[in-house]
Amino acid sequence: MNDTAPWVTYRPELQVMDCTIRDGGLMNDHQFDEKLVKAVYQTCVDAGIDAMEIGYKGSKKLFDPAQFGAFKFSDEEAIRNIVGDNDTNLKLAIMADAEKCDYKTDILPKEQSVLDIIRVATYVHQIPVAVEMIHDAHEKGYEVCCNIMAVSVVQEPDLDQALEVIAQTPASTVVVVDSFGALYREQIDYLVKKYAKAVEGTGKEIGIHAHNNQQLAFANTIEAIILGANRIDATMMGLGRGAGNCPMELLLGFLRNPKFHTRPVYELLQDYFVDLQKTMEWGPNVPYNISGLLNQHPRAAMGLRASDDKDQYVAFYDRCISDV
Amino acid sequence: MNDTAPWVTYRPELQVMDCTIRDGGLMNDHQFDEKLVKAVYQTCVDAGIDAMEIGYKGSKKLFDPAQFGAFKFSDEEAIRNIVGDNDTNLKLAIMADAEKCDYKTDILPKEQSVLDIIRVATYVHQIPVAVEMIHDAHEKGYEVCCNIMAVSVVQEPDLDQALEVIAQTPASTVVVVDSFGALYREQIDYLVKKYAKAVEGTGKEIGIHAHNNQQLAFANTIEAIILGANRIDATMMGLGRGAGNCPMELLLGFLRNPKFHTRPVYELLQDYFVDLQKTMEWGPNVPYNISGLLNQHPRAAMGLRASDDKDQYVAFYDRCISDV
Repeated sequence: MNDTAPWVTYRPELQVMDCTIRDGGLMNDHQFDEKLVKAVYQTCVDAGIDAMEIGYKGSKKLFDPAQFGAFKFSDEEAIRNIVGDNDTNLKLAIMADAEKCDYKTDILPKEQSVLDIIRVATYVHQIPVAVEMIHDAHEKGYEVCCNIMAVSVVQEPDLDQALEVIAQTPASTVVVVDSFGALYREQIDYLVKKYAKAVEGTGKEIGIHAHNNQQLAFANTIEAIILGANRIDATMMGLGRGAGNCPMELLLGFLRNPKFHTRPVYELLQDYFVDLQKTMEWGPNVPYNISGLLNQHPRAAMGLRASDDKDQYVAFYDRCISDV
Repeated sequence: MNDTAPWVTYRPELQVMDCTIRDGGLMNDHQFDEKLVKAVYQTCVDAGIDAMEIGYKGSKKLFDPAQFGAFKFSDEEAIRNIVGDNDTNLKLAIMADAEKCDYKTDILPKEQSVLDIIRVATYVHQIPVAVEMIHDAHEKGYEVCCNIMAVSVVQEPDLDQALEVIAQTPASTVVVVDSFGALYREQIDYLVKKYAKAVEGTGKEIGIHAHNNQQLAFANTIEAIILGANRIDATMMGLGRGAGNCPMELLLGFLRNPKFHTRPVYELLQDYFVDLQKTMEWGPNVPYNISGLLNQHPRAAMGLRASDDKDQYVAFYDRCISDV
């Protein structure tokens, strides 16, 4: 084709973060086999992925360690058990949820930790907490990202204010997060441009974290990349809450940077994820399509899929659109 | 959000065609239960879909009626058995493949048929045959579409010439067909704009027929719609060859025209397609991801999925990229 084809080249500054164990853990209370976590880690290294988000820093006051697996808490020891001293180019991240993380005590100073990145996740009403957490992590020596969750249900003035506040923090990345998998391409455009404008001149990068309710996670990720987003979230075979995320194997295939390799990812999927699918369900199906379309939290669809009525689509749809 | 939001409105001239039975038939030699075909037809009517492509007009010299189901051939009687006199607003279509259809005898004059639309499918090297078929169908009284298949492997000068020739035919629609599910959004842009320019001033519409190898069928369909494509193909639950097509339930949810209804589609999926999935496989998975990424025909991936090695992704990938 004889026009300019920018899709043949690549942007060296674009970085990919694997969120498989962190987002996928929402589907099994983070009860992953240690062998699987190690395999995901090694695959990230082999595939040339830039960063791996290994879990949450959940508060042990809020979450019972007897119920949840190690990466609900991501204690330093648990992480080192997987990565040793992480003598690789892969950066390691954890997610710290606003109001669900004892960050002052549980996030160690960077020099005591193998972690590189703290990702502060916040609903828009929690921004003041998130700002404190961002400063705390930055002062401890980490690279910090801020994920404003569920943006598809945020009112415009609230979002504008939130972005204005975050723009002044030392977070180096602000992530567009489509928690409900509700957004279409034109809405992704709108948001990525808004975020970029809000952080203009600060040197901050824009990130994208998409969910796959309407089979748009990969496409919306591509869209954000085209518009300049340089911090890209994906997961192996799309494993993640509900309909899951942008599949890593598709993303790496799309990216043209020769540092990325898809073959190790195919190997991981073949050796671990085919079996995992037999015991866990994730990925788009009709109930997740419906919750995405209606811009609703996936919890009702997750509940349906865990019940005997999992394929009763019409009754589910009727409940989702009922006024009571 | 306070900017213009064109995605809230709709384009009345946009028409949707259901291709479930035609494209899905490629996965089971068209051996669909008559009850299922009737249910898809009734759902199309109830959902406000504009047209239904019920099958192929395959040559009985090339395809054995003992091996293939009724809608490999779509005899008038077989169609009427499903739709009666089709006393509805739903238009009925069949696909006539260049060099695989005895169109002169098997396509009846419009006044003897319940069909409304003939879709001529052609590879770029068959354009002269396709042009004759387009004229034949037009002279018999039908609305005619032309689907240029496998465009992702067509050389630019060939495509330009094909479009120039088709622009002069009485076909009312030219369809961008991503047979291999290989195209990304920017490539869809490029092609839709090219097709639109080629038929400028002829009154022809642009159509889109996407495959879901890389989970981009719905997204690429949205992209074509944004750029003005008004003839849109989709299938129920994405049923179609290999990775399948743009899912109807997602497309109708996205379209804002109040004439479309998703609930009848959810009902069909619940009552028929959940069971169908137990005996047929379709939809994106790793081997289809790979064939889409590599811009290859899905037949190797289909062969793999039908074998005992269906999850041997790495060996499959290695074969796909081997030089021999």
